[in-house]
Amino acid sequence: MTSERWRQATEWPLMAAALLFLAAYSVQVIGDVSERQAQVLELIQWITWGAFTVDYAVRLFLAPQRWRWLATHLPDLAMVVLPVLRPLRLLRLVTLLRVLYGTAGKALRGRIVTFVAVSAVFLTYCASLAVLDAEQHAEGANIVTFADAVWWSLTTISTVGYGDHYPVTVIGRAVAAALMVSGIAVLGVVTASIGSWLVERVSATATVAVEQADADLKGQLERLHTEVTRLGRLLEESQGTRKEPVVGEETR
Amino acid sequence: MTSERWRQATEWPLMAAALLFLAAYSVQVIGDVSERQAQVLELIQWITWGAFTVDYAVRLFLAPQRWRWLATHLPDLAMVVLPVLRPLRLLRLVTLLRVLYGTAGKALRGRIVTFVAVSAVFLTYCASLAVLDAEQHAEGANIVTFADAVWWSLTTISTVGYGDHYPVTVIGRAVAAALMVSGIAVLGVVTASIGSWLVERVSATATVAVEQADADLKGQLERLHTEVTRLGRLLEESQGTRKEPVVGEETR
Amino acid sequence: MTSERWRQATEWPLMAAALLFLAAYSVQVIGDVSERQAQVLELIQWITWGAFTVDYAVRLFLAPQRWRWLATHLPDLAMVVLPVLRPLRLLRLVTLLRVLYGTAGKALRGRIVTFVAVSAVFLTYCASLAVLDAEQHAEGANIVTFADAVWWSLTTISTVGYGDHYPVTVIGRAVAAALMVSGIAVLGVVTASIGSWLVERVSATATVAVEQADADLKGQLERLHTEVTRLGRLLEESQGTRKEPVVGEETR
Amino acid sequence: MTSERWRQATEWPLMAAALLFLAAYSVQVIGDVSERQAQVLELIQWITWGAFTVDYAVRLFLAPQRWRWLATHLPDLAMVVLPVLRPLRLLRLVTLLRVLYGTAGKALRGRIVTFVAVSAVFLTYCASLAVLDAEQHAEGANIVTFADAVWWSLTTISTVGYGDHYPVTVIGRAVAAALMVSGIAVLGVVTASIGSWLVERVSATATVAVEQADADLKGQLERLHTEVTRLGRLLEESQGTRKEPVVGEETR
Repeated sequence: MTSERWRQATEWPLMAAALLFLAAYSVQVIGDVSERQAQVLELIQWITWGAFTVDYAVRLFLAPQRWRWLATHLPDLAMVVLPVLRPLRLLRLVTLLRVLYGTAGKALRGRIVTFVAVSAVFLTYCASLAVLDAEQHAEGANIVTFADAVWWSLTTISTVGYGDHYPVTVIGRAVAAALMVSGIAVLGVVTASIGSWLVERVSATATVAVEQADADLKGQLERLHTEVTRLGRLLEESQGTRKEPVVGEETR
Repeated sequence: MTSERWRQATEWPLMAAALLFLAAYSVQVIGDVSERQAQVLELIQWITWGAFTVDYAVRLFLAPQRWRWLATHLPDLAMVVLPVLRPLRLLRLVTLLRVLYGTAGKALRGRIVTFVAVSAVFLTYCASLAVLDAEQHAEGANIVTFADAVWWSLTTISTVGYGDHYPVTVIGRAVAAALMVSGIAVLGVVTASIGSWLVERVSATATVAVEQADADLKGQLERLHTEVTRLGRLLEESQGTRKEPVVGEETR
Repeated sequence: MTSERWRQATEWPLMAAALLFLAAYSVQVIGDVSERQAQVLELIQWITWGAFTVDYAVRLFLAPQRWRWLATHLPDLAMVVLPVLRPLRLLRLVTLLRVLYGTAGKALRGRIVTFVAVSAVFLTYCASLAVLDAEQHAEGANIVTFADAVWWSLTTISTVGYGDHYPVTVIGRAVAAALMVSGIAVLGVVTASIGSWLVERVSATATVAVEQADADLKGQLERLHTEVTRLGRLLEESQGTRKEPVVGEETR
Repeated sequence: MTSERWRQATEWPLMAAALLFLAAYSVQVIGDVSERQAQVLELIQWITWGAFTVDYAVRLFLAPQRWRWLATHLPDLAMVVLPVLRPLRLLRLVTLLRVLYGTAGKALRGRIVTFVAVSAVFLTYCASLAVLDAEQHAEGANIVTFADAVWWSLTTISTVGYGDHYPVTVIGRAVAAALMVSGIAVLGVVTASIGSWLVERVSATATVAVEQADADLKGQLERLHTEVTRLGRLLEESQGTRKEPVVGEETR
């Protein structure tokens, strides 16, 4: 079995596992669950983690160059061997975004805009979960409800940063750093899309000018061709008129 | 009656209704009104809401594909069926922006800059109203005067976010989120406009170079055409001189 | 005397007046001056204000279409008729920037970068002065030293906005709004300059490709021209060889 | 010995000195060192400073135009003559970035992205060190641990600026200003890279259109050339048939 076929066969099951994990994690972090429920939710998360680990092992086994594969899939490794850092498990969900990007529309810019919008919402939700998980039982924390966490995520991804809520734990700050980088990238993509649309409009005008010039050249060449063809006909006639008398001379 | 004709016939009355609504809402939120006045202002708002609802119903009735129209006009629906969320009614005013964009100048970039400047001012004003409406009677709120609300809007749309004032209610935070997205878009359009202007200047130089090259090619083709035409004349003369002797021979 | 000649004749004196005003205003706001010194500084400012007012009146008198000139020079008018709003007088200094832009280097992008850098420093300084002037004697203000004012300006123009210092007066907030807009524009110009430089590098490659294609076309045309010229020579010779025999026949 | 050879010979030793300095400075600022260790670390820093000073002197001596070299290397001078401002010594490390840029990959955009990513991490680290050095013993400071310093650097370079930590000393604020400018530049480069990538994709399409048009022109020219060549053959044949009879006439 090849690496590619494994990937295709496991894409949807892993997607389901990722969503299941997200649901269980969300309930665990946000909800007010009994100890019994908490155990079930924890179990679901460990099972989905198991599925990811098996997938990782199989992909490593199937890879043609294992050391290279290992080196180029470090985030996957981090996710598998560091299950204690629960927010890190959310990294798995990036796969969802990859699938989204693959199934988005055809036009480059529209695709990017859709992708950025969905990613921004998704990242805000995941970051809110992760920061709440890290902060809600920390001492001196000011992000203790999910509403606060979402609000904090919004102010961070937009780089507004009021400072009414902010993380105080190391993990919470790491989540914040990831979100800030995303915020910069989102700003960048939005700006770049508008910019490239404007430039395209302008360069479309330039392209029209160039095409006009080309059409002029083609017209000139067309006329030249007509002229040369006429010359060719004249020459053939001329040879005809000359050859006849020559023949006439000989028959004379 | 077609959908298009209805739209044309109702454009200005709805515009007037929207402005009337904005005025009534502004006085209600900012002003210090007596109970009697408050009732009048509330009535005006319900009347304008009625006008929007009738417009929505008629447009839905006239639409060729009703389900599709419903699906592509969800913001309109939200505005009509959720009149309790008063700030949401401000959405109607987006129509004003659409008309503004339609009547702006011809040049693409100038139009965008004008549109962005007016939209930014308009959004700042509406967001100030909406946030003040949501926050002024909330417990622990720090946006309680219109001056504070405008100042908060400015720090948010520019993504500065000092944090001296910030919303604490859910509706206030939703308004903030909308304003942050606007802030990002405004930053993007400003950057993109400057960028596309710079690129245009550079690509204008490139276009000049291409046009120069085209002019060279045209010159070459011109000279070639002249040469071929001369050839044609030579050939015709040659036939003439040949035909003459032939005629001469025959007359000989 | 024409409007243009007046502008040329007064450019440097007004520049000097503007700098004198800036110096006097700076000392007055930042320095710890005695009452006597304060009167001198106030006098200097009124004299420079007088110079600007005279200049404004003369330019209005010399303008071909006075109402139009009035409508397109509203900032100048505001500066002249509202001398009570001292920070507004700083608007006059924008002229300094205009001269700077005119005397900067030739290359478009280098010029813009220089202009933005100098403008950013200049705006930071003026905004610091203006906000300190507005805030330092206000109740509850937290910008009370020049160091604080400069620091606040920096955090605002970069849209960082820590919120450790922020204006509380209306005039101070108006200064802040102007500075935020500048911050957005600065961000935009920096981004756009980098972007257009990158695009230029890429489009330079494209231009090279187009030029190569043009060169190929020119080569083809050159060869065609050579061929046609050869044809022309052949035809002339042909006529020559034909004419000779004909002449020979006649001399025969 | 030429200036260029000196630069080549000292590049790696100075790099090592810079890294040694960074290590010693890091331990001194972050670590909890005994007085004895502090003296050793101080000594290392003075030795590396000595190396930089010697390098500066030699380069000045070797420069063809010394006054010009002095004027264009002011940051180097500041670093050498102001060793009291310890954070300033970190400027030397910019050389590291220069070498990184030189050894990065070939493709322009990939190189820039790598360079920006590494520079951002490096700047964040150096700014954290510098601000901690300036703030940790200052009165009323709120950046007193390395974790706080790194967190503050992150919120500043991303222009989020929560305001939970901020510098209060003049040197700390100068470091902050440098970091803000870097933040703006980073935002700019990220945006510009995405934008230029998008524009390139679009302009690639335009280039293809232009190339298609060129190919059409070439095709037309090809056919024209064939036609003219055929004409030439016809003409030569025509002369041949004419010359033969003429010769025939003469032999007759």
